Amino acid sequence: MNNFEFRNPTRIIFGKGTENNIGREIKKYTNRILLCYGGGSIKKSGLYSRVVTSLKENNIEFIELSGIKPNPRLNLVKKGIDLCRQNDINFVMSVGGGSAADTAKAIAVGVPYNGDVWDFYIGKVKVKEALPIAVILTLPATGTESSNSSVITNEDGLYKKGLNSELIRPTFSIMNPELTYTLPAYQTSCGISDIMAHTMERYFTNVDHVDLTDRLCEATLKTVINNAKILIKHPKNYDARAEIMWSGTIAHNGLLNTGRIGDWGSHKIEHELSAIYDIAHGAGLSIVFPAWMKYVYKHNVNLFVQFAVRVWDVDLSFSSYENIALEGISRLEQFFKKIGLPTKLSDANIDDNRFEEMANKCTENNTKTVGQFIKLGKEDIINILTLAR
Amino acid sequence: MNNFEFRNPTRIIFGKGTENNIGREIKKYTNRILLCYGGGSIKKSGLYSRVVTSLKENNIEFIELSGIKPNPRLNLVKKGIDLCRQNDINFVMSVGGGSAADTAKAIAVGVPYNGDVWDFYIGKVKVKEALPIAVILTLPATGTESSNSSVITNEDGLYKKGLNSELIRPTFSIMNPELTYTLPAYQTSCGISDIMAHTMERYFTNVDHVDLTDRLCEATLKTVINNAKILIKHPKNYDARAEIMWSGTIAHNGLLNTGRIGDWGSHKIEHELSAIYDIAHGAGLSIVFPAWMKYVYKHNVNLFVQFAVRVWDVDLSFSSYENIALEGISRLEQFFKKIGLPTKLSDANIDDNRFEEMANKCTENNTKTVGQFIKLGKEDIINILTLAR
Repeated sequence: MNNFEFRNPTRIIFGKGTENNIGREIKKYTNRILLCYGGGSIKKSGLYSRVVTSLKENNIEFIELSGIKPNPRLNLVKKGIDLCRQNDINFVMSVGGGSAADTAKAIAVGVPYNGDVWDFYIGKVKVKEALPIAVILTLPATGTESSNSSVITNEDGLYKKGLNSELIRPTFSIMNPELTYTLPAYQTSCGISDIMAHTMERYFTNVDHVDLTDRLCEATLKTVINNAKILIKHPKNYDARAEIMWSGTIAHNGLLNTGRIGDWGSHKIEHELSAIYDIAHGAGLSIVFPAWMKYVYKHNVNLFVQFAVRVWDVDLSFSSYENIALEGISRLEQFFKKIGLPTKLSDANIDDNRFEEMANKCTENNTKTVGQFIKLGKEDIINILTLAR
Repeated sequence: MNNFEFRNPTRIIFGKGTENNIGREIKKYTNRILLCYGGGSIKKSGLYSRVVTSLKENNIEFIELSGIKPNPRLNLVKKGIDLCRQNDINFVMSVGGGSAADTAKAIAVGVPYNGDVWDFYIGKVKVKEALPIAVILTLPATGTESSNSSVITNEDGLYKKGLNSELIRPTFSIMNPELTYTLPAYQTSCGISDIMAHTMERYFTNVDHVDLTDRLCEATLKTVINNAKILIKHPKNYDARAEIMWSGTIAHNGLLNTGRIGDWGSHKIEHELSAIYDIAHGAGLSIVFPAWMKYVYKHNVNLFVQFAVRVWDVDLSFSSYENIALEGISRLEQFFKKIGLPTKLSDANIDDNRFEEMANKCTENNTKTVGQFIKLGKEDIINILTLAR
């Protein structure tokens, strides 16, 4: 086990009806916020009006930034930064999924910074200051509700980049599983894939003897898998929604990473896919991850056997170790299919024309590698994309 | 799953050599501290001198409170409060196990309070303010390094009482598994029993559908069990020490309790045992917990079957559900024996003369119950102690 530091101060307020207290919670910190959200769905569902009512009851002024879309864009972040500066706002709140929250986080680091907020995302400067952030989560997926990360797409060249900083963990996040009842099945599944990917990125490590976190990862994966199966038939099962929502936080709050080094190669490859094709992140991951696994499993067959046996209940005596490992990967693919996700690029109507372009962007023209389990160069990425055809 | 709030802001600094940075870490907050510790062992091991060197190098003044013993006493807490007040100290640090840290926590709430600090422990007043606390942990057991609790014994009548408050979570805790190499095997085992008990107190709940936390509890228990077996033969195995140390934190940082209601009956009964007989808390728990299980398992046989199958690998098809449940309890007992702990009162030379006295104290003369899984009255406690004879 490696040395580590771990701190996650986000206050989680979880359960039925919790969003109705948003005004009271905000009031503990400020009386003026930027309210970031997407558009239609929170208005249709009535969530928007409940939030606004609670804010007004507590005399919280709010300026709105709406229109945030999946793979959230830099231009809206800049608009949000301007709104905060013009209106002397020092607290950013999102209502929605990861895109709204990641936009809020980008605004939170951008407001106190004099340069271009994109500087943080390309690693040109480090975050030294950020406004406090609150999140009302409507889509369990990115884990951004208590994570230290934010992912933004720069439409100028279609670059999708992630920022990590301890300063962008939300001050508090409100999570009501009931708010996820009305998610389309496909979006629920994309979230599930993202949650599993966050766990698996951490699971496949070269660090030896990380028993506890291995098992915590396996616990999270099994919970997500079993409850996803319930949701196929019963999308309004509260407990199944709650299990997946809380798993989404645990998968990405930093705990599962303690003492180990995650991989993150599949995420980097997927970012290229969704930047170009605007495919949902979770759908990109359900395509990339199995291909990545097939490409790298020989690097540590035993770890893939453990994954197969402990997560997918593959019978340990059933065949050679290599076959057990492959059976685990196959069950992951079958699971993704079962919940309606693509597992091949062709399932998402993506052809092989731009593999080289993506591999070049991902590796900055083959000048750097991605991933830790195996460090992947340009050719490796083309090979993985080819396996995913 | 129940609604919940969860926040744990303690910064964990984990791994080899981390205690050598204590001065630098303290300096971020203050330049004057109360330094709380037991006595001999940290001096013998050289830890005391390394800590003092680091404090001096960073110009941290410190006043010492030494002589803290297991089942830490109220009189020393009061001495610590006086020392802080006399020396204008506003930061309390412990070096040692749970007793040193729990003493530091009691001092931290006592200094800003005008009344008797014991008021907090008997629930007469609520904590509104506390000094910041830092911990260097040398014994994985109580989880106090990031928990919201402190347990103190009032020698006037031998009452042992626990205080819970979000304000007594340490600001930071330094955890170096190497510091636990020299623990006597028995003390290591008592810690293991305590860690397992913290997990099991949360595991046995009446709240339905708590999959994720069930599995996180099971992950923690399996990790502790497997690594405890390594330590029997290899007490200086770093990774096994690290797994158990980190498990000790996870078991009691609040995560495993999210969405569910823990029991805590066995802890309450054990507090009576150790208050009277001064038995190690972990040894008291290894006696009380199996007896409690035998007394209550019929209340939810399925949950005990899950415990047997998932934690102890009992074959699900091997017998009737009741027998599987009992086999799980039996394996827990066997495990405790294997690591050198008592599982019967007679193993610890405790007779049945004071059962009624303990049951009376525990239930305040049968005016209240203890535990949540089944609410236990005076007679129940006598029955459990009788099963533990």
